[in-house]
Amino acid sequence: MESGPSGGSRPAEPGPRLRGLRGADAAASASSLSRFGAEAGCRAPAVAAVLPAGGSGERMGVPTPKQFCPILERPLISYTLQALERVSWIKDIIVAVTGENMETMKGIIQRYQHKRISLVEAGVTRHRSIFNGLKALAEDQPNCRLSKPEVVIIHDAVRPFVEEDVLLNVVTAAQEHGCSDYDLEFGTECLHLALKYSHIKAKLVEGSPDLWKVTYKRDLYAAESIIKERISQQVCVVMDPKEDEEHVGHCLEEMLKTELNHVQVTSGQDLQQIILEQCYNFVCVNVMISDFEETQRLLNMLEESNLSMLYPVVVISVHFLDYESVPFGQKMEKVMQIREFAKEAKKGNILLFGLLIYFPQEEQKLQESLRQGATIIAALIKERNSGLIGQLLVA
Amino acid sequence: MESGPSGGSRPAEPGPRLRGLRGADAAASASSLSRFGAEAGCRAPAVAAVLPAGGSGERMGVPTPKQFCPILERPLISYTLQALERVSWIKDIIVAVTGENMETMKGIIQRYQHKRISLVEAGVTRHRSIFNGLKALAEDQPNCRLSKPEVVIIHDAVRPFVEEDVLLNVVTAAQEHGCSDYDLEFGTECLHLALKYSHIKAKLVEGSPDLWKVTYKRDLYAAESIIKERISQQVCVVMDPKEDEEHVGHCLEEMLKTELNHVQVTSGQDLQQIILEQCYNFVCVNVMISDFEETQRLLNMLEESNLSMLYPVVVISVHFLDYESVPFGQKMEKVMQIREFAKEAKKGNILLFGLLIYFPQEEQKLQESLRQGATIIAALIKERNSGLIGQLLVA
Repeated sequence: MESGPSGGSRPAEPGPRLRGLRGADAAASASSLSRFGAEAGCRAPAVAAVLPAGGSGERMGVPTPKQFCPILERPLISYTLQALERVSWIKDIIVAVTGENMETMKGIIQRYQHKRISLVEAGVTRHRSIFNGLKALAEDQPNCRLSKPEVVIIHDAVRPFVEEDVLLNVVTAAQEHGCSDYDLEFGTECLHLALKYSHIKAKLVEGSPDLWKVTYKRDLYAAESIIKERISQQVCVVMDPKEDEEHVGHCLEEMLKTELNHVQVTSGQDLQQIILEQCYNFVCVNVMISDFEETQRLLNMLEESNLSMLYPVVVISVHFLDYESVPFGQKMEKVMQIREFAKEAKKGNILLFGLLIYFPQEEQKLQESLRQGATIIAALIKERNSGLIGQLLVA
Repeated sequence: MESGPSGGSRPAEPGPRLRGLRGADAAASASSLSRFGAEAGCRAPAVAAVLPAGGSGERMGVPTPKQFCPILERPLISYTLQALERVSWIKDIIVAVTGENMETMKGIIQRYQHKRISLVEAGVTRHRSIFNGLKALAEDQPNCRLSKPEVVIIHDAVRPFVEEDVLLNVVTAAQEHGCSDYDLEFGTECLHLALKYSHIKAKLVEGSPDLWKVTYKRDLYAAESIIKERISQQVCVVMDPKEDEEHVGHCLEEMLKTELNHVQVTSGQDLQQIILEQCYNFVCVNVMISDFEETQRLLNMLEESNLSMLYPVVVISVHFLDYESVPFGQKMEKVMQIREFAKEAKKGNILLFGLLIYFPQEEQKLQESLRQGATIIAALIKERNSGLIGQLLVA
């Protein structure tokens, strides 16, 4: 069962457009296989996924095979595994990698704590790799922990953005449709292979535009931008309300809401919950105190949560300062201090930046500083540039 | 004459792969139509290009038609026009836009000083738009400034990365090949249209992977990254050698050469020449003096050169500082000063940043500061983030 892209980058070209379910048409609430029971009146089938990942990525023009190319320092294949793992009803995920990449792959599984993964050796062709994966699922070995599936999803290791509803459509189609000559005629050879060796029914199902395949270097760029955008949708503002006598922290929060379009700005009153909900951006506001105590507390919580294992987390430590009344020299020590903190935090994939916001008495000037602060915060979150960690920016 | 992508994002799919010339096979030195004379013994034909640009970009999921979507604040179509304009032997470029976008298009041509462009009204379909473009070229009007072409290149407005050698192949093929039934069978309908109305010979020629079409939002991300990468290949280090008694500016230059892989680091001894050669990144080193005189001189030269009209130019004003001996408070005034300079420079599409490099007496610490400085310079050049202009970063 192969999930093909719908209208890839060359949608005007003739291609295999079979009658099938579109990802976009699937109910958004279809978040589990419960749909099988509710709608079709049939029981949920046992599902496994096979990922051929033995490619050399020669079209990419880089020495690393594309499935191992880093995006925000994490290999592409880890994003694909993450997308499949999220789907609780996929019981087993078989990855076919070449012998020389076996150790790399084991390292990736361990480091990013991927679950339900089994590795098989890739064949010399993509079809051979799929065959090896199917064979592992079909084998009757006494100590085999793999359960025999009724439906096998064949999914490219370099399509990281697959959504659950598309996978659900694939499985639904696998149950509902037989395998006609028509399907075979238009489908890829992989379908043929699946039919021949596993006695599993096969059909080509349309995917969504998100299902596109990372092929060229430009696709890596696009994937990185998409991932950055996805993890920049929410910002949590952390502050001690008791401290905010001047309400300036609150004003900054309001300014962020105004300036950062499409970004959800959350108050960090229940930090544990916000971390659990996977917010990857934190603005830690220090109004009266000028040390990093509050920021350090946040960093500790983040480290304990393991939130930054999959994506770099941005923390911006904001300090307010009236240049006119406080001698700036005293702040220089802080500059050095945040750099040391940032170096430590980077080891845990947390990107720490400092931001000094000018705090004048005049209301209009203050608004201007806050707006500038919001612009800088937006820039830091958007780019997630680890080359600038530990910097003390000035608004 | 249509230039099609070779192996677009879905290279495994069957598509029109005709015998033809590959962009990659063309001689790299084929920089003008002189090849026509030298190799084929035939005269250079009169060439024009027609760009259908009437699309609504609905697949992009954004309200702006994709040809007008900004990349580094400049509309996509301007990049495509730039790519065609560079080719001196394309005598006329006809762009077909809808009535409602006519004024926008005129504004783009004026702002980015595009030459040899004529506008026609787009039709309701892509084919109609091409027809309108061809008609304008074929018309016999007394005051028509367009020369009648022998070859017309039909080029999508949303393929910004077309190279001269691919265009040359298109024109060569147009001269060498007749139009067989085979071509018609596999070619697109546009070819048919060209044949029917203009009596011009038509054939589908393979392009290069660079020729890909911006269709989805992810393609805009990819295009932005590609453009950023292209203009970050060269950094020019500007300094007054008389000032560099401690040779620290020279050390920074060496460090940049070591740390910035794949980037050409140039000494700014002949600034006018370097600007002419389109270097978009400048590091202005101030060793002994602590004002912005040298930086201001560079900014003036850049503004006069008009270099930043097409791409944002990055200028990093580097200052060395021994924190231990100089009170930092004195520098604060500078912080405010560079912010004002940066605001002014931004109006001319120049992104100005400040960088303070710690200058300790101890050699090893100095090397560490310089390395940190090189990392920051690399980050600023790579991201070109206008949200951080005017910042004084610390290494």
